[in-house]
Amino acid sequence: MKQFMDEDFLLDTNMARRLYHEAAAGQPIFDYHCHLSPEDIAENRRYGDLAAIWLAGDHYKWRAMRANGVDERFITGDAEPYEKFLAWAETAPRLLGNPLYHWTHLELRRYFGIDTPLDGKSAPGIWLEANEKLQNDPELSVYGIFKKFNVYAVGTTDDPVDSLECHEKIEREGKTATKALPSFRPDKALDIAGKGFAEYVAKLGKAAGKTITSLDDMLEALAARVDYFDKRGCRASDHDLEYAPFEPAEANWEKKAARAFDKAMSGISAGPREAELYKTFALCFLAGEYKKRGWAMQLHMSALRSINSAALAQLGPNTGFDVIHDHPVSAKLSRLLNEMHGRGGLPKTILYSLNPKDYYPLATIMGSFQSEVPGKMQLGSAWWFLDSRDGMEQQIKTLANAGLLSRFVGMLTDSRSFLSYPRHEYFRRILCNIVGGWVENGEAPADWQLLSGMVNGISFANAASYFE
Amino acid sequence: MKQFMDEDFLLDTNMARRLYHEAAAGQPIFDYHCHLSPEDIAENRRYGDLAAIWLAGDHYKWRAMRANGVDERFITGDAEPYEKFLAWAETAPRLLGNPLYHWTHLELRRYFGIDTPLDGKSAPGIWLEANEKLQNDPELSVYGIFKKFNVYAVGTTDDPVDSLECHEKIEREGKTATKALPSFRPDKALDIAGKGFAEYVAKLGKAAGKTITSLDDMLEALAARVDYFDKRGCRASDHDLEYAPFEPAEANWEKKAARAFDKAMSGISAGPREAELYKTFALCFLAGEYKKRGWAMQLHMSALRSINSAALAQLGPNTGFDVIHDHPVSAKLSRLLNEMHGRGGLPKTILYSLNPKDYYPLATIMGSFQSEVPGKMQLGSAWWFLDSRDGMEQQIKTLANAGLLSRFVGMLTDSRSFLSYPRHEYFRRILCNIVGGWVENGEAPADWQLLSGMVNGISFANAASYFE
Amino acid sequence: MKQFMDEDFLLDTNMARRLYHEAAAGQPIFDYHCHLSPEDIAENRRYGDLAAIWLAGDHYKWRAMRANGVDERFITGDAEPYEKFLAWAETAPRLLGNPLYHWTHLELRRYFGIDTPLDGKSAPGIWLEANEKLQNDPELSVYGIFKKFNVYAVGTTDDPVDSLECHEKIEREGKTATKALPSFRPDKALDIAGKGFAEYVAKLGKAAGKTITSLDDMLEALAARVDYFDKRGCRASDHDLEYAPFEPAEANWEKKAARAFDKAMSGISAGPREAELYKTFALCFLAGEYKKRGWAMQLHMSALRSINSAALAQLGPNTGFDVIHDHPVSAKLSRLLNEMHGRGGLPKTILYSLNPKDYYPLATIMGSFQSEVPGKMQLGSAWWFLDSRDGMEQQIKTLANAGLLSRFVGMLTDSRSFLSYPRHEYFRRILCNIVGGWVENGEAPADWQLLSGMVNGISFANAASYFE
Repeated sequence: MKQFMDEDFLLDTNMARRLYHEAAAGQPIFDYHCHLSPEDIAENRRYGDLAAIWLAGDHYKWRAMRANGVDERFITGDAEPYEKFLAWAETAPRLLGNPLYHWTHLELRRYFGIDTPLDGKSAPGIWLEANEKLQNDPELSVYGIFKKFNVYAVGTTDDPVDSLECHEKIEREGKTATKALPSFRPDKALDIAGKGFAEYVAKLGKAAGKTITSLDDMLEALAARVDYFDKRGCRASDHDLEYAPFEPAEANWEKKAARAFDKAMSGISAGPREAELYKTFALCFLAGEYKKRGWAMQLHMSALRSINSAALAQLGPNTGFDVIHDHPVSAKLSRLLNEMHGRGGLPKTILYSLNPKDYYPLATIMGSFQSEVPGKMQLGSAWWFLDSRDGMEQQIKTLANAGLLSRFVGMLTDSRSFLSYPRHEYFRRILCNIVGGWVENGEAPADWQLLSGMVNGISFANAASYFE
Repeated sequence: MKQFMDEDFLLDTNMARRLYHEAAAGQPIFDYHCHLSPEDIAENRRYGDLAAIWLAGDHYKWRAMRANGVDERFITGDAEPYEKFLAWAETAPRLLGNPLYHWTHLELRRYFGIDTPLDGKSAPGIWLEANEKLQNDPELSVYGIFKKFNVYAVGTTDDPVDSLECHEKIEREGKTATKALPSFRPDKALDIAGKGFAEYVAKLGKAAGKTITSLDDMLEALAARVDYFDKRGCRASDHDLEYAPFEPAEANWEKKAARAFDKAMSGISAGPREAELYKTFALCFLAGEYKKRGWAMQLHMSALRSINSAALAQLGPNTGFDVIHDHPVSAKLSRLLNEMHGRGGLPKTILYSLNPKDYYPLATIMGSFQSEVPGKMQLGSAWWFLDSRDGMEQQIKTLANAGLLSRFVGMLTDSRSFLSYPRHEYFRRILCNIVGGWVENGEAPADWQLLSGMVNGISFANAASYFE
Repeated sequence: MKQFMDEDFLLDTNMARRLYHEAAAGQPIFDYHCHLSPEDIAENRRYGDLAAIWLAGDHYKWRAMRANGVDERFITGDAEPYEKFLAWAETAPRLLGNPLYHWTHLELRRYFGIDTPLDGKSAPGIWLEANEKLQNDPELSVYGIFKKFNVYAVGTTDDPVDSLECHEKIEREGKTATKALPSFRPDKALDIAGKGFAEYVAKLGKAAGKTITSLDDMLEALAARVDYFDKRGCRASDHDLEYAPFEPAEANWEKKAARAFDKAMSGISAGPREAELYKTFALCFLAGEYKKRGWAMQLHMSALRSINSAALAQLGPNTGFDVIHDHPVSAKLSRLLNEMHGRGGLPKTILYSLNPKDYYPLATIMGSFQSEVPGKMQLGSAWWFLDSRDGMEQQIKTLANAGLLSRFVGMLTDSRSFLSYPRHEYFRRILCNIVGGWVENGEAPADWQLLSGMVNGISFANAASYFE
């Protein structure tokens, strides 16, 4: 029996262990997609206690606590930080089998050196020990964490209207070796059916230094902001899409898009097809802009948001009430990418779906637009609800079977917490276990150079060259 | 090489074996969802031969025989019981890899002490030996079986118009320690587009002691029957849904539902949207009634019924011609549950799908309505075509990854046969093998109290507290 | 650690090894579905170099090279054969984890006796050694290959207008013991919305010796060609269906189909529903014709073709730009098969899907039409993008769980290359590993006769009796 989470955690064979310890573990982290706060980075923030760094804003944990019957007061309510921590600690042992169980204990070990499993009994001691370190250990400021985990770069997620002053400050002050790269996420600019669209457009115009009164203005403003982001080091955009839109590009496409835009600006809400037409048009335009600048375009698909209306009214969005959608994806996504390809050009693209049934379709769709550079089109890593051992194995194996695993840009955390870096370790262990298993089983040759090169690439080097 | 089906069947590691033998095996069975006949229970029935207890009514076996080219005469036709048994015995060796192969041999062992694999050669001896025991062994009456397998309770499936006199008789006579609990399955009351709806409504009115001439009457009658079932010990409803209906609840929802009901009562068949609107409305009403009484609501989704018209005409429904449907589920199911939540309240709910592609969407949807009690919302166990080792592993792992496995109410047989209790053993072995495997592999701590508590809960205790 | 691809490649247990070496390995190959060229067979063709036999026409390899950033000139362009081979050799090591990696190295070993892994360094030597053998080794003519791999029969894929003269010549000359059986693939006859439909109908009429001016003529001509193929040894049809069509058969079905046909013949393009109605009608007619002659009907579903318009314009169809579709399938496919069953009769049928999410629905749908002969309805083997170890395991396990694996007709290559026979070996190893694993694990009895019979059946005998 292996000890719980020992140094060979998740590594079942000799070759898996060697690959992890000698190749993967030493690689830097390119955390190219996260939701860390640029302010917190710029201020090299410290957190006063485990509740602040661990529980505030982590809707993964909130969902687990709700499933365990914890009262909302101890989750997002007005309970004391320690009470919230205790509710979480009492939930932890109930999480056996859930990736949160592994993440939690990896984080306790790697940040705080705490080996004791978290539960109601161990909670008081862990609270004191961890908080003491959070407050005093130089390794536990933001920059300390970056250094400790060898974080080469983080890709934050930013609205086109954002000034990026925090990114500028981080670079100017040079207090951390870690690069803070913005990502361009123009969801609000595409959502003409959303509330507050016109207000958003006004803000965008202000950011771009021009008044927006037409679709042409809008596109110019967006292009100006792409430029601005590009100058601040941005190498990627990100799009949250409930599904891949495609409302066909007929003769008067631009005219129709302009009409939809005008209506939305004058407060008339767009119908679903009209909104989809505008979104398709704007996405195709933006794809061309990204392509020109060598950016990667990330499409995150199949999240259905805020399905619990009472919770939305009480707690707002992004509080743990989003779910996996299950639209068919092949037809529209194929046509959307084809349209981009035939117009301004298809940039480097990463396709993510929150539904594992989409992995095979996506892997074959991206495979039909490969060209120019190795791994131009990517099947994005297992994400959010799929970010478990099983989910990652399924994504890795699908990509291996239907594409070139060795060209994969690897793990993204999508995290809001500075405590999430061990999830790269988790991913790398799982990757090395798969590849090492092939070798032990006679399915791959024991060619160290080939194998370690592949693992190093997926751990870091592929992302570094993809985003630079 | 392990012996075929020895005591450590399906248990690959030491911890798996210990968990099964020391924790799971001794737990009582709460068979909360089955299709056993209340009459057979009330009469403490004995079966004269293996054909009667094993083959009559078991469409799983019928399908296997058809796939093996057996003539329908030996399946549902007028062949002699022994001829039918022989046809089944000759099919059995062809079933390697199918869960029926394991179930069959577990049943021969656990009920009859017969270790010989079933085939054409062993059939005559098995027929004699098993029939002798069926006729004479006191352990092989219904109550004998209940006692032998430590069956704490069975949940039968009953129509709202049912008098439940058998349940009443079983309780009154007290000849078995096993509780026979009815379940409320109002499918016919929701199917306004079905043939014979008006006739059914008349029966329902009679059962409820009132004449039903309007939707209001209908709702009152249903509520009255929910009350009646509640007094007879019912703790759960069950709904067979081809897909989760949701025809939106606009301003005049109730009025529209009433109009659809009136049309159906006057013999005008409802259109699909109208039927769906009525079904949505009635389900939301019933959910509120269940909620008031603390019942669990079971939604069984994605079975497409009787696809072979010739077979339906010849043999009727439920004879082995239903299949796995593959609608998308996320959008409508999310809205249906949200509607219930916002109206009369969402009761404890178990979501089952016959399609494994739905497990991840369902697990995240149910996770968005967790509150109040631990494990209020459940991802139902692998069911029917999915009730295999692979299917159960997929359901257990999905739930573990996206929810709290430790709060799972566990296995249901959905069975029509008193020979099905070893399927709980089968499930528990698979469960212990997964959990034990985590421990052996260093993915979970070797904390016996934690692990055995989890396994005991899923085997019995969680269901006992959920349904009581 | 096992040696890379040694004799026990993919065989993890003693029983798996015994089953493969003593039972499966010696079975002949019935390659019942491929795209080999009848001309090449009739001419007992030899290939001058590895590029000609390996790279020309293999869009699997083309996709891999594109994903590796190889310029199209070295894939389908005007580069020299050796340059193309080199580009492929440099891609090969990047394919770790992809079935192409295994296929490539199995082919080098089994045809050429070359054990060295292919890469840029080994490429020059392998090019010389393999080409020398291709040009001179008597085992590497088409008939030599057939003999070496014990190929009992190949099923080519042929258009109804084809004269089948190559098949006739092969039989007449008797230079190979391998049977070359045509398969009837009338896709163009069903595609009334396609370009060139009327021209195709004219050709079909010519082949059938009659002028086609009405739907009745068309059906007669198709039936005549079915007859013609039948006399040339054809035992199977094949249909490529983006999805299973079903536009319901109401009162005037035939009349509506005739109207659609007439429109298409006069150059008016059919609408989607009209085209689907015609296709449904014609498929039901053909099913009856197949049924009369004891043929098997193959339905290949869920490929979405040529999604990259620029590539289609440049390279034409079947060049590596097809993808996995993800329609729902249950509702329409169930009704299509039911319609066939209720009309001219449902022939032996093999259902293939390119999307693994369809395996469970398909397995249960085919299970609802089983009758007459063992394994009449088949879940087709993992195909194209799914033809990997993982994909085959998923197909085999789904079939085992939801049907009778022992009645499975086994592997098809769908190949265009005479170098593909080791893929039968690959399949058989995977099959034996699964079955052997069950035995080692106590899930199946160690009954050699039962197990070897099952493995022999799936390797060869089931197909031989199914198609004869």
